[in-house]
Amino acid sequence: MKNITLLGATGSIGLQTLDVIKEHPDQFRLYGIAFGKNVDKATEIIKAFKPKIIVVQDEKVRKELLIHTDQSTILVGREALDEVSADPKTDVLVNAVMGSVGLSATLTAIRHKKQIAIANKETLVTAGHIVMEAAKKYGVDLLPVDSEHSAIFQALNGESRKDVNKIIVTASGGSFRDKTREQLRGVTVKDALNHPNWNMGAKITIDSATMMNKGLEVIEAHWLFDIPYDKIDVIQHKESIIHSMVEYADKSVIAQLGTPDMRVPIQYALTYPDRLALPPSKSLDLVEISTLHFSKMDMDRFPCLAFAYQAGRKGGSLPTVLNAANEAAVDLFLREKITFLEIEEVIENAMTNHSFVKQPDLETINAIDQEIRNKTYEKY
Amino acid sequence: MKNITLLGATGSIGLQTLDVIKEHPDQFRLYGIAFGKNVDKATEIIKAFKPKIIVVQDEKVRKELLIHTDQSTILVGREALDEVSADPKTDVLVNAVMGSVGLSATLTAIRHKKQIAIANKETLVTAGHIVMEAAKKYGVDLLPVDSEHSAIFQALNGESRKDVNKIIVTASGGSFRDKTREQLRGVTVKDALNHPNWNMGAKITIDSATMMNKGLEVIEAHWLFDIPYDKIDVIQHKESIIHSMVEYADKSVIAQLGTPDMRVPIQYALTYPDRLALPPSKSLDLVEISTLHFSKMDMDRFPCLAFAYQAGRKGGSLPTVLNAANEAAVDLFLREKITFLEIEEVIENAMTNHSFVKQPDLETINAIDQEIRNKTYEKY
Repeated sequence: MKNITLLGATGSIGLQTLDVIKEHPDQFRLYGIAFGKNVDKATEIIKAFKPKIIVVQDEKVRKELLIHTDQSTILVGREALDEVSADPKTDVLVNAVMGSVGLSATLTAIRHKKQIAIANKETLVTAGHIVMEAAKKYGVDLLPVDSEHSAIFQALNGESRKDVNKIIVTASGGSFRDKTREQLRGVTVKDALNHPNWNMGAKITIDSATMMNKGLEVIEAHWLFDIPYDKIDVIQHKESIIHSMVEYADKSVIAQLGTPDMRVPIQYALTYPDRLALPPSKSLDLVEISTLHFSKMDMDRFPCLAFAYQAGRKGGSLPTVLNAANEAAVDLFLREKITFLEIEEVIENAMTNHSFVKQPDLETINAIDQEIRNKTYEKY
Repeated sequence: MKNITLLGATGSIGLQTLDVIKEHPDQFRLYGIAFGKNVDKATEIIKAFKPKIIVVQDEKVRKELLIHTDQSTILVGREALDEVSADPKTDVLVNAVMGSVGLSATLTAIRHKKQIAIANKETLVTAGHIVMEAAKKYGVDLLPVDSEHSAIFQALNGESRKDVNKIIVTASGGSFRDKTREQLRGVTVKDALNHPNWNMGAKITIDSATMMNKGLEVIEAHWLFDIPYDKIDVIQHKESIIHSMVEYADKSVIAQLGTPDMRVPIQYALTYPDRLALPPSKSLDLVEISTLHFSKMDMDRFPCLAFAYQAGRKGGSLPTVLNAANEAAVDLFLREKITFLEIEEVIENAMTNHSFVKQPDLETINAIDQEIRNKTYEKY
């Protein structure tokens, strides 16, 4: 029986993680949860799973939650996130929290040698150099939850890293893949949230439409699999059936495929190196799907992907700038303060105007992250 | 440095194995070869690779060969095949010989704990129960050379066999995949030998057109991977890019892909569990290929596949009957003694009229094999 602590329990990944836990009551117990503001959803979760420890964002949320539950152990704030991540009873930490607050929890879990299922992008995008060094030092595996990274991780199973020629990350193309740049001028938030294949949160759905999601994944893949950017390709594959691939020295390509269902990679991160049945997940039926399409990823059509490669290659503080500017820009777009194409402008401006730091420590990363967000919000 | 002994050196798989050996003079040395009748090709090979031991089919071939080479160690006949397979200097046996003569060599190599790259279908189709028991007893891995089995073998890498849901074998459909049964009546040998994707020998190209090749592969997969027939699916995939797949308990599917190039699986069987660069092989370019198609395998359209499932499920001596009748029938078709559709009739008749043996030993298998061939040739 594994005790799972789930950071970001009320988000999309969080809820699907709970689906997986529910499927295997004999294997997994929800030990701790953390969430931001969604008290209604959290109340349901607490009622159904009875976690021993609950972490909330602030005192206000704690008071609200206390109206609905008689659970006594409700901790508050960032330090509490670290505390529950380090808890001796936590066997697996699922880090699906959004934003830089997830980074500290990951590092704490690494120092306490936890099995870590990582869905928090900031962890690797902004601090890959720090996190991977720590993971190496403490001998901890970071198990990816993203479908693409899980696919690569599975395709690397039983293979030697030295034999890897390149990684091929697939991209659905997002909700606007068939639109020209000209047509993107008028798109609305509602249009953008309509992803063709995956059911995900708002932020990541917008990131899919701008292709920034793929860019962040490329940076994550670089760190997770210790592979140079020149050996990471992105190709468009609109059906999202091949979740990503690895080409080896002998030109043999190993791919992981499946119906688009986040519960599969989530469960794999919990059961690795074993697998478990997952009855609610649908078997892949390639005959029914009939055709898989592949096309070139156009960096001019999707400049955010080019920004990400640029930030990744340059390294240092630039990925933090990329990520913070993107988060602020997507937030502004979702609140209809800027247009879809202005997301790119915000990011490009932030990267151009940034004073580069080569080896930022955690404090510097957090400071730059905050500074970029502040500047972006000031401007719009 | 591994000493390779190559049975069936002048055939299609044999020559491609030599390509691989030539690529890695620091890794592989051609120690022994065996061939049937192609003295010209064998002379070239002997000149280029200087194998220490040569095995030929009969005294006549030996004398012919002696005109072209001053190589002294030329052995003759079936026993010599066993001898070279057991030779203490043979590290890896590549068994690419055709027909039942390959079976005894495989068993000898197993008893001498050699690494065995297996391309001889009879080994598993007719005597899977004997061969796999021996392999288990002596702790020997049988490394598949067929692209489909190699794909499955690679997709099983690092995984636990208990987690396998099913195996999905892909089939190109062969040279006649777009023809109806009615249109098959008039096809010629030349039409049949024109395979759309793979460059292979005549027998296997005809077997691809009748789908018997896939049927034999299903039986081989059953034995190689110890998996029941109900868990082996065949789907049509005309581009031959996904070479086969494994679905796991969690619905995750692992596939091996690549350009159709037999040198990749051949080399993998030689280097396993490592990989080596293979410069002449082309990198898979899915963007250039652009589309992959999948469709249902129609057992009515391809009765040979249904015969193979039937023979495999029933087991005992029936796969031997299937294989021997098919070999004779394909030979008769290639010599234009029977029509393409009569191949199926020959096999069906042989299976229907056979007196079933439940647990045939090697001697019984050989006797039945010979009997079926004789009967078939007598009739046509």
